[in-house]
Amino acid sequence: MQVELITIGDELLYGKTLDTNAAYMSENLGAIGVTVVRVTTVGDTVEHIEEALHSAVTRADAVIVTGGLGPTPDDLTRQAVAQAFGRGLVFREDVYRDIEMRWKRRGKPVPESARILAHVPEGTEVMKNAVGAAAGLKLTHERTIFFFLPGVPDEMRSMMDDCVLPFLATKAAGRAIRHRLLKTAGITESALHEKLQGIEGGIQAVKIAYLPQHYEVHVRLTADGTSVKVAENSLARTEKVVREHLGYYIYGTADESLEGVVAGLLLDGGMSLCVAESCTGGLITGRLTDIPGSSKFLERGVIVYSGKSKNEMLSVSKETLETYGTVSPETTKCMAENVMMLGRTDLGLAVTGIMGPSGETPEKPAGLVYISLAHADGTYDKEFRFAGDRVTNKNLAAQAALNELRLFLLKNFKQISNRRTP
Amino acid sequence: MQVELITIGDELLYGKTLDTNAAYMSENLGAIGVTVVRVTTVGDTVEHIEEALHSAVTRADAVIVTGGLGPTPDDLTRQAVAQAFGRGLVFREDVYRDIEMRWKRRGKPVPESARILAHVPEGTEVMKNAVGAAAGLKLTHERTIFFFLPGVPDEMRSMMDDCVLPFLATKAAGRAIRHRLLKTAGITESALHEKLQGIEGGIQAVKIAYLPQHYEVHVRLTADGTSVKVAENSLARTEKVVREHLGYYIYGTADESLEGVVAGLLLDGGMSLCVAESCTGGLITGRLTDIPGSSKFLERGVIVYSGKSKNEMLSVSKETLETYGTVSPETTKCMAENVMMLGRTDLGLAVTGIMGPSGETPEKPAGLVYISLAHADGTYDKEFRFAGDRVTNKNLAAQAALNELRLFLLKNFKQISNRRTP
Repeated sequence: MQVELITIGDELLYGKTLDTNAAYMSENLGAIGVTVVRVTTVGDTVEHIEEALHSAVTRADAVIVTGGLGPTPDDLTRQAVAQAFGRGLVFREDVYRDIEMRWKRRGKPVPESARILAHVPEGTEVMKNAVGAAAGLKLTHERTIFFFLPGVPDEMRSMMDDCVLPFLATKAAGRAIRHRLLKTAGITESALHEKLQGIEGGIQAVKIAYLPQHYEVHVRLTADGTSVKVAENSLARTEKVVREHLGYYIYGTADESLEGVVAGLLLDGGMSLCVAESCTGGLITGRLTDIPGSSKFLERGVIVYSGKSKNEMLSVSKETLETYGTVSPETTKCMAENVMMLGRTDLGLAVTGIMGPSGETPEKPAGLVYISLAHADGTYDKEFRFAGDRVTNKNLAAQAALNELRLFLLKNFKQISNRRTP
Repeated sequence: MQVELITIGDELLYGKTLDTNAAYMSENLGAIGVTVVRVTTVGDTVEHIEEALHSAVTRADAVIVTGGLGPTPDDLTRQAVAQAFGRGLVFREDVYRDIEMRWKRRGKPVPESARILAHVPEGTEVMKNAVGAAAGLKLTHERTIFFFLPGVPDEMRSMMDDCVLPFLATKAAGRAIRHRLLKTAGITESALHEKLQGIEGGIQAVKIAYLPQHYEVHVRLTADGTSVKVAENSLARTEKVVREHLGYYIYGTADESLEGVVAGLLLDGGMSLCVAESCTGGLITGRLTDIPGSSKFLERGVIVYSGKSKNEMLSVSKETLETYGTVSPETTKCMAENVMMLGRTDLGLAVTGIMGPSGETPEKPAGLVYISLAHADGTYDKEFRFAGDRVTNKNLAAQAALNELRLFLLKNFKQISNRRTP
């Protein structure tokens, strides 16, 4: 079944108002196995509404239209329907009585402008509005069923839930759609795709999509089945295969954040942490402290922005700073080890880098970042090269540092990785 | 000029993702006097994209399309353009060289899948992507100009701002709409409205809107005139009156951020700063270091999350901590003064607070925050009470700290406030 949505309203075209009606309808249609194939938004103009209705007839089995049913001059849906489908507007006594009732309950006379609400295109079924005054309309033109709902979100929702969804659910019997979002870190969209390329052909009834977010890529699996159970089974099977191929690159699912996962690992392992940040300027501790209970593992952080502070607070010798530079594996390693000693914690994490636009040299370009992780058994370090602007590089560096910490905890501590198998 | 938008992506039809790209484009087109007449959203299906392109040609003067330009199999825009407009895809060496450069800067080989990004429909102009790998496309079919932009919001925005908006602005003459955004800090939406209520009636041809953002409120002035000059004159007159009424509450305009303004004041005054954060966990230094040149004023920061670290790093005595508590004006004052001494800077800023959900007591509820500012002439402090959840409170505390720093600099240092009259 091909279902389209048409949302009407100048405010939607000004960009100040997000189209939450379309999102609500799509999500709830998806839940009963109906996929929306197109959403069209037009303004309060008879000509544009008419044209949108016309072209939908040629394609869709069902069309849900919201907006333009109120009593003011910018509510033009009735008129556009009459013109598009060549049906006159007729005054419906039964609809008017419902309107009268509404005003009577509020102890007020019916305003003259409300009479327009009882004018309905010929051959239209009326859907009662449990929340507001404007009735909904349902009609079939050629072989397409049209539902016209008010644009006021509460009224639209109540009519969707009471009339449209039950009706379409019976039409769409025997199909269900289920989603699963897997969040990754430390891997690009193209590399993810290369890893999964081999299995995509073998997967049936599940679509894989790659969604690049700000500083990480999400993989969305969408299963389409003859029942909820069938869809969920294909989803589970596919998720298993995808996880086998992506392993540790997957850090979590829809509701999880990278800092939340890292915090969970530290709490699970009963491990404490100190952080020394230079180029990320507090972003790493800022993200970790978003997580409730972070005071249980985060002892302190230092933002050693100047060379002087690296020397004074973390005992990075002037020799090291001069010989290797502030942005070097040697300085970063020393920072990680000394911040761990300073707070007497299990782990020390340190980051240095050149964020741009200033401070770069031919040997050390903007985007060069060193990350070190100190632990009683030794210090691990890694170099990164990012290619964004200053703020992007900062965020990519913080993301990489949190991800290195996650991988270090998963790979080196049995008690943690047993509980959190990738 | 009839402008339409086409947004591509299955995720937009599932209802999980709101179409913020369409909103951004509409709003910014409106700002240059261009009204969007239709938005069409289709999924990742060649047939549906092709049809949307076809029908737009018959109606629109310009069409902006987002999404489907990435390297994975669900990115189908190139293919749909080729089919819809009967143009072959050609491999463009110049585009591929830009892609190679991007990977080279990150010290990595170009993945095979990235080659697809250099395949461009014949007769297409390429728009460079300052943020990501996928180039934008611009072509004219019949008499309609098409712009194809990536769906990743940052990339779409940068290409809209750099290419699409300047191009369409020159096309849209005759009527001019001009906006001015004034950003405020330390005042609520209702308080702003009360301050401006008296003048709203006297203003002609300019609309005032209040836009509450995450942690601050923006005031948008919109002037509508018969020419750019007329609109800009009404705007300038209104802005002057609004500024007289709001004074120091306005910290900047559209392109400015609170941290950027604070950084500017510190640089102007040649003043240096150390920051001691407890409850904000690095957020304040994180924001300040987003600004290029922040190393010129930010000497260091400490995140003294534990009581132990407050004592060890900032010499807050155990007596003070026990008598007044870690969240108290006494502790915060001591932190501000001692962090200033530690870095031998002109200013010391300190924040403590209870962010929730844990840690609150009847006397010290979640949302209680103390901010102290130390300077050679003495220490200034202030209490705040916020009512959000953990992350909101953290952000409100960082916002308040930056704003207090701004006001302190403006009010106490003539050399600064002379240059920056509110």
